[in-house]
Amino acid sequence: LALLGVVEVLGVAAIAMVCYWAAHYRGGFAWDGSGQQFNWHPVLMVVGLVFLYGNAILTYRVFRDQVKFGVKILHAVLQMTALILSIMALVATFDFHNANGIANMYSLHSWVGLTAVILFALQWVLGVSTYLLPFARRWIRTWFMPYHRFLGLIIFGMSIATCLMGLTEKLLFSMDADTYSTFPPEGILVNCLGLILVLFGGFVGFIATK
Amino acid sequence: LALLGVVEVLGVAAIAMVCYWAAHYRGGFAWDGSGQQFNWHPVLMVVGLVFLYGNAILTYRVFRDQVKFGVKILHAVLQMTALILSIMALVATFDFHNANGIANMYSLHSWVGLTAVILFALQWVLGVSTYLLPFARRWIRTWFMPYHRFLGLIIFGMSIATCLMGLTEKLLFSMDADTYSTFPPEGILVNCLGLILVLFGGFVGFIATK
Ligand code: HEM
Ligand code: HEM
Ligand code: HEM
Ligand code: HEM
Ligand SMILES: O=C1O[C@H]([C@@H](O)CO)C(O)=C1O
Repeated sequence: LALLGVVEVLGVAAIAMVCYWAAHYRGGFAWDGSGQQFNWHPVLMVVGLVFLYGNAILTYRVFRDQVKFGVKILHAVLQMTALILSIMALVATFDFHNANGIANMYSLHSWVGLTAVILFALQWVLGVSTYLLPFARRWIRTWFMPYHRFLGLIIFGMSIATCLMGLTEKLLFSMDADTYSTFPPEGILVNCLGLILVLFGGFVGFIATK
Repeated sequence: LALLGVVEVLGVAAIAMVCYWAAHYRGGFAWDGSGQQFNWHPVLMVVGLVFLYGNAILTYRVFRDQVKFGVKILHAVLQMTALILSIMALVATFDFHNANGIANMYSLHSWVGLTAVILFALQWVLGVSTYLLPFARRWIRTWFMPYHRFLGLIIFGMSIATCLMGLTEKLLFSMDADTYSTFPPEGILVNCLGLILVLFGGFVGFIATK
């Protein structure tokens, strides 16, 4: 599967680009209620709800021939790590907003984004209780599996769409439309990052539904 | 299938909301290079690349028991109409930009959006030549079908994500972030429209992959 190589290269490129954007153009990182604290938000979301999420989806395809129980643990742990990072990412913006008297949850980005995180947490709890703990009967596991897959992929799509809105918003907060429309390097960088997120999502979806 | 009713209600609600937004908050419609010409852009995109596209995807599920050839024609005609409307929608913005000296194709929204329209056009040509015209062998039709389905659904997802970025952009052009963050009625309307587009896409995807 050379496709897997492509996916990993895209994923690592996305992480590198979002870090470079935050560090070089947006003033770097801190945890002090400033815009530098906000910068953790996009970075943690791309690492957690895109990169780790995507890789967690692929575990069963990559480790086809390994012991099922081990792969389940890996899948669950990756998804748990993604969930924790996404919650840290939420704390980063909410803190930043509160420290600066900015309202919370006003944007379409935040509505779709919070819905995605809540559904993700729900899916995680349902996943653990259905497929990891020994309580669920076989027919429940079998019956629920198509829903688990479908919901998992839809939430993944919502995450990526949320990132695209977030990138668009942050660019328009950092520079106005007149500047964005002169093709500045920062704009091009972020546009390329957005395209890479779309490609990453597309390839993960392709492998997972093949 | 009560789900189908839900999908149609969501779709019609989305069209009503985007029309109301453009007419009531954004100054209505015209074809004169003004912002009123731009207003055709979101309306035609929502009607074409979301509503008609979604309904075209569903044709084979809705008309399960009809003659296959008739359903194919319907599917192809709906997708062709969607393509034509989306091209008119593109003309609406490009015209508006050119008439007002605004650069073209600078945003992440436009990059993902144009990619989606080009892939959609390609998919349409491939669909007609593989499944409508009599040239393609049976094994080619069978071999290509999973790709046709997958690409069709991915491009649909890209369309919806593009709409979400477009809504975000247009709101931030029309009011600044300080206003958006006071929860004005226009902001709430557009956020709800965005959520409805996500729901519409989710339900169409669910029915089409069930
Ligand atoms: C799946 C990934 C993401 C999720 C779930 C998400 C979720 C959220 C949520 C819930 C808020 C509201 C915080 C508050 O109101 O205090 C928010 C704010 C924000 N996010 Fe994200 N976000 C994601 C990715 C990104 C990315 C990649 C960026 C790019 C810079 C970004 C930019 C922003 C900005 C600028 C805000 C503040 C303005 C606003 O409230 O809309 N987000 N995000
Ligand atoms: C938010 C958390 C989760 C998400 C988003 C998620 C998503 C997914 C997706 C998209 C698939 C399909 C992968 C493929 O087709 O190759 C899948 C498969 C699976 N997941 Fe999860 N999952 C989550 C948590 C869990 C947890 C905690 C468990 C418990 C072990 C679990 C158990 C499974 C199993 C058994 C499969 C089927 C693998 C197979 O036999 O093909 N999932 N998951
Ligand atoms: C699938 C649906 C959509 C596609 C494929 C799409 C595509 C595009 C493209 C290619 C452009 C560039 C035009 C130019 O540079 O002259 C553009 C511009 C624009 N679109 Fe969309 N669009 C879609 C939906 C929407 C929606 C629903 C809105 C909501 C208002 C919107 C708002 C905008 C805005 C504000 C611009 C001008 C700024 C810019 O170039 O980004 N779009 N769109
Ligand atoms: C851009 C244009 C097109 C898109 C986006 C598209 C998308 C799709 C999608 C998503 C499906 C899966 C539907 C389902 O699973 O229920 C599908 C099925 C199908 N499409 Fe298209 N399509 C397009 C154009 C065409 C054209 C022009 C034809 C020629 C007749 C065609 C023929 C078919 C056939 C035969 C099926 C299989 C139906 C079945 O047996 O289940 N498509 N298409
Ligand atoms: O416990 C399990 O449940 C699912 C499957 O049996 C459901 O169809 C699966 O892959 C397991 O390992």
